[in-house]
Amino acid sequence: MKQSQLFGKTNKTAPKDETSANAILLERAGYISKVMSGVYSYLPIGLQVLNKIKTIIREEMNALGGQEILMPVLQPKENWQKTGRWDSLDVLFKLKGSGDKEYALGSTHEEIVTPLVQHYVSSYKELPVAVYQIQDKFRDEPRAKSGLLRGREFSMKDLYSFHATAEDLDSFYEKSKEAYFKIFSRCGLEALLVEASGGTFSKYSHEFQVISESGEDTIITCINCNFAQNKEICNSQEGDKCPNCQNPVSLKKSIEVGNIFKLNTKYSDAFNYSYTAQDGSLKPVLMGCYGIGPSRIMGTVAELFNDVNGLKWPLGLAPFQIHLLLLDPTKKEEANELYQELTNNSFEVLYDDRDESAGVKLKDADLMGFPWQIIIGTKTNNNFELKNRISGDQKIVDQKELFKILEAEK
Amino acid sequence: MKQSQLFGKTNKTAPKDETSANAILLERAGYISKVMSGVYSYLPIGLQVLNKIKTIIREEMNALGGQEILMPVLQPKENWQKTGRWDSLDVLFKLKGSGDKEYALGSTHEEIVTPLVQHYVSSYKELPVAVYQIQDKFRDEPRAKSGLLRGREFSMKDLYSFHATAEDLDSFYEKSKEAYFKIFSRCGLEALLVEASGGTFSKYSHEFQVISESGEDTIITCINCNFAQNKEICNSQEGDKCPNCQNPVSLKKSIEVGNIFKLNTKYSDAFNYSYTAQDGSLKPVLMGCYGIGPSRIMGTVAELFNDVNGLKWPLGLAPFQIHLLLLDPTKKEEANELYQELTNNSFEVLYDDRDESAGVKLKDADLMGFPWQIIIGTKTNNNFELKNRISGDQKIVDQKELFKILEAEK
Repeated sequence: MKQSQLFGKTNKTAPKDETSANAILLERAGYISKVMSGVYSYLPIGLQVLNKIKTIIREEMNALGGQEILMPVLQPKENWQKTGRWDSLDVLFKLKGSGDKEYALGSTHEEIVTPLVQHYVSSYKELPVAVYQIQDKFRDEPRAKSGLLRGREFSMKDLYSFHATAEDLDSFYEKSKEAYFKIFSRCGLEALLVEASGGTFSKYSHEFQVISESGEDTIITCINCNFAQNKEICNSQEGDKCPNCQNPVSLKKSIEVGNIFKLNTKYSDAFNYSYTAQDGSLKPVLMGCYGIGPSRIMGTVAELFNDVNGLKWPLGLAPFQIHLLLLDPTKKEEANELYQELTNNSFEVLYDDRDESAGVKLKDADLMGFPWQIIIGTKTNNNFELKNRISGDQKIVDQKELFKILEAEK
Repeated sequence: MKQSQLFGKTNKTAPKDETSANAILLERAGYISKVMSGVYSYLPIGLQVLNKIKTIIREEMNALGGQEILMPVLQPKENWQKTGRWDSLDVLFKLKGSGDKEYALGSTHEEIVTPLVQHYVSSYKELPVAVYQIQDKFRDEPRAKSGLLRGREFSMKDLYSFHATAEDLDSFYEKSKEAYFKIFSRCGLEALLVEASGGTFSKYSHEFQVISESGEDTIITCINCNFAQNKEICNSQEGDKCPNCQNPVSLKKSIEVGNIFKLNTKYSDAFNYSYTAQDGSLKPVLMGCYGIGPSRIMGTVAELFNDVNGLKWPLGLAPFQIHLLLLDPTKKEEANELYQELTNNSFEVLYDDRDESAGVKLKDADLMGFPWQIIIGTKTNNNFELKNRISGDQKIVDQKELFKILEAEK
């Protein structure tokens, strides 16, 4: 795409009330635009990043055996009363419509998915079932100051699994961990599996945490045996002995990027959801739930991968792999040809054909942070300057070499 | 996909309170599941249809020069007060969050898109701009009895265009009509362009209407000159003279599947949005808006394309092109092989491998309504029975002929 046509542009400053690095960078670089605290619009390049994350998640959820569905945001009060969460969930947005009908805005979907699956699945022969959706969620966060890390409206992938036996739930739960690690790894994130509170009905749940000073969570981690636990459920301090291997543990701030939970019969009990077992008896269905926030992943990556000049997207998430910068206006024809050649070879290219100075273009490119910059300037003669935004390496290459390098990393 | 693994199944009956054909058929056939009046969940095959419609719309909006963005559902009261619609729009859902902050749920997005584009586009050099999104909308419909035709929560593509001159708006508006006709045609719908009320700031808006007895609209149409007008803005009766060509007009019930509107300066005035013209003066930006509901298209197609046995999806919208029915259990190996062969040739196939009677499988296939059924029964020897669900044609073919026919219509 030609940058002269792109909707959205870089801003010298972010809105004054933004304090988090991810929001400041994403807004300055033209990825998102703040509507109000905790609520953003996605500009074209921001939506492309978000969609790439969603595609990665979708592929791994399908590989895990999940089937994609879509459940509504608007939910009947009655369902939330059945589980007791109409009154107990602080962050639930509630509203009243015509005829005094009361609704919740989905902050999670157990209240919808449980009766849905109950309607279609009633025999042991039909279990297990795993369904997921990618749907926006709403939470009335009193403080929403962390950009995409904590929104009032945010994107969420939520998968729900339904099982006849605890063994089957356990086995699926373990497989889901692998799927989650694959997702984070494909998004460029190193996530730790962390034990967290299991509520009243499971010993533990598990969170996937990425270490970052901007995180709202604190975890203890052991580099010796990979044990990690949310500080919420333990009293360990820096240097205390790991409960697993006695090595001294560290205390770290971290961002929760995913959460998996054995719900067991909490929601099937609330909706009186049983299945018919092989012997004809009725038994409660066991459930698990598995969440990842695509918008929070986007915020986390922005928070972690940047330098003073701007963002540094991993290749798999960048809106465009290549930023083609025409700095020397006399070489427009050469740049047009290369742009054509690159797109013909199915590279994703943003071509900065704008009538701006070399300095502005270079600054914008670093701020926007695509993995490769191809610079056509006055000094390169018939060659190109190829810069890797992530490593910072740059060198002069001819067209053949250029394609060789780019193809190798495609 | 193997049908034994598919989440969702056919129901003998739809919920008792459903009265519209589209909701009854889509629920019975396992495409959607009602959560409450005007609010549905999409099961896997329903989501596939919805996504195919969204993809068609996306392709045509991109071809028109639209750039995809994503704006939030949750919107600040202040924006709606600026346009006066906080009080005037009856169907607006309103809610109050923590700190007594008041929000609207987006029923349309002029209140968000106008300040968004205003933030990025201020010079005549940057105009025109066209941005669109596919986002769920919320309307507090007092009566929501028409299935996917009128939801309280529904999918919408809304495009907004911004122009320096009336000529430029006019020209884009005409091009948008062509894009809309392409979309409806690709969805199998014959839509009429109908003049409708332009509000206080345009002579007319234009609706795209599909003739159907289930429609909530009434239009007058002239078969001689293609003139069509919404009954809301005229007093014509059946047989009256066409205002355009004097031919007698007909009165028809119809479903509105799209709507385009010259907003002119209505919203730019409300947000005080001007651009700098070439001569340095400030001039108000002119706007157009262009809506299509993917879920309403899905409902309209279901409403129109069916028979007593069930749905009849057009090839481009069907969740699967082919329904492979194994009726004779002794031919399982043959069916498995054909299934493999078809998917290897990138056909979308649902393979009914369930342990059900031939009667159940044939009935379910007609109800679900994919364009092609391949039936492997007791009578076909080494051949296959190929049935076209739309035309009703069926014949016995060998594998070579089978692939020839299917490839031709791919």
